[in-house]
Formats: sequence, C-alpha cells, structure tokens
Amino acid sequence: MQAEIITIGDEILIGQIVDTNSAWMAKELNGIGINVGKITSISDQEADIVNSLKQAMERVSLVLITGGLGPTNDDITKKTLSDLFEMNLVQDDFLFAKVEQRLGQRGIPMNRFNREQALVPDGARIITNNHGTAPCMWFEKDGKVVISMPGVPFEMKGIMQDEILQSLKQHFSTPVILHKTVMTQGIGESVMAEMLEDWEGNLPACVKLAYLPSPGVLRLRMSLSGDNLAELEKIIEEQLSALKKIISANIFGYDDEPMELTVAKLLSDKGKTLGTAESCTGGKIAHLITSHAGSSSYFKGGVVAYSNGVKENILGVNGEDLEKYGAVSQQVVEQMAIGARKVLNTDYAIATSGVAGPDGGTQEKPVGTVWIAVAGPNDLISNRFDLYKNRERNIQVASLNALNMLRNLLQK
Amino acid sequence: MQAEIITIGDEILIGQIVDTNSAWMAKELNGIGINVGKITSISDQEADIVNSLKQAMERVSLVLITGGLGPTNDDITKKTLSDLFEMNLVQDDFLFAKVEQRLGQRGIPMNRFNREQALVPDGARIITNNHGTAPCMWFEKDGKVVISMPGVPFEMKGIMQDEILQSLKQHFSTPVILHKTVMTQGIGESVMAEMLEDWEGNLPACVKLAYLPSPGVLRLRMSLSGDNLAELEKIIEEQLSALKKIISANIFGYDDEPMELTVAKLLSDKGKTLGTAESCTGGKIAHLITSHAGSSSYFKGGVVAYSNGVKENILGVNGEDLEKYGAVSQQVVEQMAIGARKVLNTDYAIATSGVAGPDGGTQEKPVGTVWIAVAGPNDLISNRFDLYKNRERNIQVASLNALNMLRNLLQK
Repeated sequence: MQAEIITIGDEILIGQIVDTNSAWMAKELNGIGINVGKITSISDQEADIVNSLKQAMERVSLVLITGGLGPTNDDITKKTLSDLFEMNLVQDDFLFAKVEQRLGQRGIPMNRFNREQALVPDGARIITNNHGTAPCMWFEKDGKVVISMPGVPFEMKGIMQDEILQSLKQHFSTPVILHKTVMTQGIGESVMAEMLEDWEGNLPACVKLAYLPSPGVLRLRMSLSGDNLAELEKIIEEQLSALKKIISANIFGYDDEPMELTVAKLLSDKGKTLGTAESCTGGKIAHLITSHAGSSSYFKGGVVAYSNGVKENILGVNGEDLEKYGAVSQQVVEQMAIGARKVLNTDYAIATSGVAGPDGGTQEKPVGTVWIAVAGPNDLISNRFDLYKNRERNIQVASLNALNMLRNLLQK
Repeated sequence: MQAEIITIGDEILIGQIVDTNSAWMAKELNGIGINVGKITSISDQEADIVNSLKQAMERVSLVLITGGLGPTNDDITKKTLSDLFEMNLVQDDFLFAKVEQRLGQRGIPMNRFNREQALVPDGARIITNNHGTAPCMWFEKDGKVVISMPGVPFEMKGIMQDEILQSLKQHFSTPVILHKTVMTQGIGESVMAEMLEDWEGNLPACVKLAYLPSPGVLRLRMSLSGDNLAELEKIIEEQLSALKKIISANIFGYDDEPMELTVAKLLSDKGKTLGTAESCTGGKIAHLITSHAGSSSYFKGGVVAYSNGVKENILGVNGEDLEKYGAVSQQVVEQMAIGARKVLNTDYAIATSGVAGPDGGTQEKPVGTVWIAVAGPNDLISNRFDLYKNRERNIQVASLNALNMLRNLLQK
C-alpha cells in the first residue's frame, strides 16, 4: 500500500520553514502499514497543486496534503481542490458555530476571513479539527483517497491522531511493515560497514539495511515488509542477536530512543538523581533531559556556568585553578562536576567546558576543544574531546558525549 | 530562473529524518536569484531517481540532488547518475589520496567501501568536498545542470558555500528576488489579516504577501521579483513604513532574526548582562541564548531550578512561600528572578515556573499554566500565561514569552 505526501506553501520553497510535517506523517503511516513513496513540496499556486496532485493520484491510491488552508488570501488549497473535484463551497453550520465559539472564547469577533473558513466543498467528508479553525477534508474519487489538512504541525498531528489514522486503517487493507533501528556510537560509517560486511551479506532478502549517520550517533535500520507479523519479528530478533555479537558495546538503544532517555532509564532503574554544570553546552544538556515528561523524578537541576564568576560562586571552582589552567581544562571541569553534585544535591553530575566557536580558540586549545567530567558517589571521570569548527555541531556532539560518559559509568 | 531540489534517502520517506537540507538550500539559492519551484523526496531506488530527475529536467534548467553518496551498499546515487548520463566510473586519484589521507589521520585503514568512494563518472566535473569523503558532482546535458551532493547537512552546506553558489552565479544570469520578513508577536493570524486588509489590498502587483504562523510568533513575508534591485528595495521600504504605522508595537525584528538575538542586541547596546532561572523551560532559554556566537559578552549564566531544593538553596526562594503558594506562583517566580540576578551577578534576570505537561496539572493550575518574571535594576514584572496541553509547545512558547517580556522592559 503506497501513499504520497504533498506539502503546500511558498514558505517551504524559499526555505523559511523546514517541512517537519512529512517526516511525522510518514512515520505514523508506516506504523499502520502504509508506505510513503514520495514527498513533494510545492508553492501556493493553483497549477502546481493541480498537476502535482493529478500525478500523485496516477501513481498511488492515497495522497495526504498539508498547508494552504489558513484564513488569509495566500491560502488557496480549499478552493483549488473543490474545483478539481468539481464540488461547490457551501457553509458548514457546525464549523461556523465552532469558529465563532473559539474566537468568542478569546474575545475576538468573527470577520470575513473567519467566515470563509467555515465554507467546505459539498462532496467532501469533513473531519473534525479540534485544534484549530481550518477544516480538514477527505475526498474520494475513482477509488483514490485525497486528504487535505492544515499545515500548522500541532493541528495536523492532532487531526491525524484523533481520526485520520483510524479511518485509513479501516479504509485500506495493508501489509505489515516493520522497522528496527539500532542506535550506536563510537564507530564511523565506513568502519562499521566493514565490521558488518559478513552479517550484512547474509541478511535474508526481505531485510533492507540502511546506515544513518548524524552528529555523534550512527543508526542502523533494518526494514522488513511481508504478510506475517510474527515471522518478521522472528527474523528481526535473530538478526539483532547476530548483530549484538559484533558491536554490542557500541549499542546504546533502539528505535530512535535518544541518548538522554537511555540515561534517564538507567537513573530511574537505580533510583539515582542527576544534575548538570554546563559551560560550552550552555543549557543544551538540561534542555534535552527536561524535554521529556517525568524528568523531574531524576533531574534536580543544573547550573549554566557561562562566566568564570558563576563557576566560582555557585559551583565552588577554585579561582587560582581557573587562572592557572583556564576554564577549558581538566582541573576546572572536574571541580565543576564535583561542585554541581554538591550544590544541586544529586547522586551524579555532568560538567562541560570547551571552546564552542567560531571564535575563542587558541593554538593550545583550538575551537572544538571540550573537556567533560562526570562525578558520582564513588567516581570522578573526565575526558578531552577534539570536536569540530561549527558551534551548533560542537554543542550537540559535546552534549551527547557527556550523556554517553554518564551512560558508560551507570552501566559499569 | 527556476530550480528544483531532489533529496534521496529511505530515511526521509519513513520519517526517520527530517529533510532540513532543502530549506537551507532554497534559502541560499533565493539569495542568488534562483527560485525553487519544487522539492521532492524519494527513496534510494534507481527507477525513482531516474524518473524524478528526468521529470525535473523537463521543467527547469537546474536540479540539485542530495543524498545517497555514502560508502555503504544502500547508496546508489553515483552509479545511477553515471548510468543515466552514459558515463563510466573511473578512479579519481586526487580523491583517492584525499580519502586515504583523511582516514589515515584518524588511524583508519582504507577498505573496499572507501576505495569505491574515489570512483567518479568520467564526464562530470568533480567539485572538491573539504568536509567529507563523498564526491560532489556537476553534470551538464542539453543546457541543463544537475548537481549531486552528499546528504550529510554540514558537508552539503560546506560544499555549497565553498564553491557551488559561486559557480551557479557565474553559470546562470538571474533576475533579482527580494524577501522581507517582519517578525511579530501578540496578534493572531486572522486578526492580523483584518488589521492589514487595506494595506494588503493596496500592495503593488509585484509584491506577494504571506502570513507564516509558528508557536508564539507570526511572520509576515513580502516577496518581490524584478530586474532592478534598487527599485525593489525602494518598494519594500515604502511598504514597510506603511506597515509600521499599523502594527509598530508588535514588530520585534526582521528577516527571521529570532527573539533571543533581538534581546541580545538590546542588552549589548546598553552594556547590560543577563541571567536565567528556569524551572518549566528546563534550560531552553539558556540554550537559545548560548546558541549564538558572542553570547558570553552579555549572558553570565543560568540556574535550571527543577527541584524545589534548588530553588531554595541556590536562588534563595523562601521555603514557606514554596509551601504556601506552590512552585508555580507569582511569589515564587518573582523570588527566582530576584535570586538569579543576585547569585549570577547580572543586571537582568528572567525566571519561569509552570506546568509543562503532560502530567502535573490541577484544577487551579492546569497543564499550560506558566508564571514568568523579569527582574532588573529598577523593575520587577511578572505575568501569568495560560498556554497549551503540549509539553514541547509550552517550553517553546514560554521561552519566547519570557524573552519578549525582557524585550519590552529593555525598550521601555
């Protein structure tokens, strides 16, 4: 069962907005056995919408469209689809009342733009949007299904979860698609390919393998398609166990579980708490950890110690050592970790201090030099990393390496 | 001058990776007068690559391709393009030496996969990739240009900046494209459309207007295309000044300058420093600020006060008030801001405390309740915000609102 996604909006084509909708939708569709064969981003122009949709409908039996449903004049998706499917726009009284009520709650009176939002094509099935005022439309023609949703990510996600995914499962009978992703660190792509050459060569024909490198992490993904779920699961299990024999120490998780959640589970299982003392990572580690619900049970807090004053006053780093060794040094980062553990009253603390760039490097400590320390009840470990020239990448990879050092300590 | 972008990789189509390359490329191409008409994401399959590329070449004279150039077996872009353009793969000695050298620096011996990376189509212009081992290829056929680049974002960006953009400018003669984006907050999309109805109706025909809503920010973008740069700039200037007469107080910046940079400039101009005390935003505000080079000149540090213990011990929040009013209260958030200013030794401090969700809400303080305070040399202001049900969105919007409160105070 193949589908395509079309995202509409000039903002995507001029690079003002990254299309995050498609990835989210593709993942959810995969979960119910629907494969996405193509993703197309086009502008808010009638000819582009009509041509792209017609081509997609020739190739597949399901097309999901997002964008172009706002109340303003640049949004033309509804009118274009209504014309294409030879329907008329008529007022939907239920939708009208809802728009009126939502605006009323915020004390905003109904205007022309809002009234137009309550118009819908008379032959489409209208799907309730509990997250905004734009209508969501389900068209059917010649056995093909076309669904038009708003482009605002949380509205689209809400509608998909509330109704669309369920409706699609009922409408189409689909094969089973399984993905298993293995999260690894510490081995680069080509070395990994060589280590796995025999294993990869002996994979059953129904398994497709992909290497997915990203800063600090290399993911290996096995994709399987078939009719029998139990059979596919058995194949994955066998191949995973063979893979573990080769690279077990480098696997930190599965199925896109990020490093901070691996660490969170280890902390929770042991009933231990964590604090952070961040200089070069500037709050990124705390942000990664607290992005996840429930983090307050193991994360007590952190200190973003950007200035030397904060390192001394809050974390208790020795002023003479700061002077003598510099902020980016083993001595200082270890004192930051020890100090954070104490002042935040936690079992473990992570500390980072480095030159994130693009400026601030010296010959001895060029941009990309990062010291990381982890302090625990019985341990104090520290490492120097020589990372990159790029600030964003340094912050990302240093945060990941810091969490990985803690993971190794917790799994010892 | 129209171009299209094709991104290749199963990881995009199953939603494992968000395609951020296209937005970045589109923006850069716009900057040199090249318009992107369509972005297509396809799988690592020969037929898909060939068909999509052929169709794109019928529509436009420039196609940029990323992805599928890795050393592993799932990457087939180079072979497919070489076949399509009827070329042969031959070893590039310069590239071979480079791959060998790069691996050598890391103590990794050359293997079969690396050797294959040094193979290139004999009729393509090979563009140096200073950021990795995959080759970048420039094909020409029937007056059309096709460029194939690696999919790893920092490699692609590096190659584009080092050489491709310059080469494209020389190769094509292009019209001028101008975009002006106005960053606003505090007015929703439909109310804004009504306020701007007259202004929008009187825009010159060469100006296209778009409303771009995102959590906490509404961007208005004017796009102009023509031959005369000075003329277009004059039109933008006139329209901007008319727009400012309508919504001046809600404009915080231009051209995608994020809120934290607006605040950074205000702080730098006044020679003032900032600190943060974050509970519900968990380090996000510090992370936003420190993402930018040079932030250490105005940002001294922050405290991520997730537990009440940290609020008391480091920020000096009164324990009885914590008990009496709860952590999510005006009393506590104001004490956090005052305490942060003191302990971080800064001119200004921002504090947040709220229920980010999805759990932890009560009838009195449901999920989405956020208190924010800003303390300055002569001011202490605080506001309650009733935000959303979604954790990620709450963290994002609360961070933005906090920075905006500081902006308003600094601009007073």
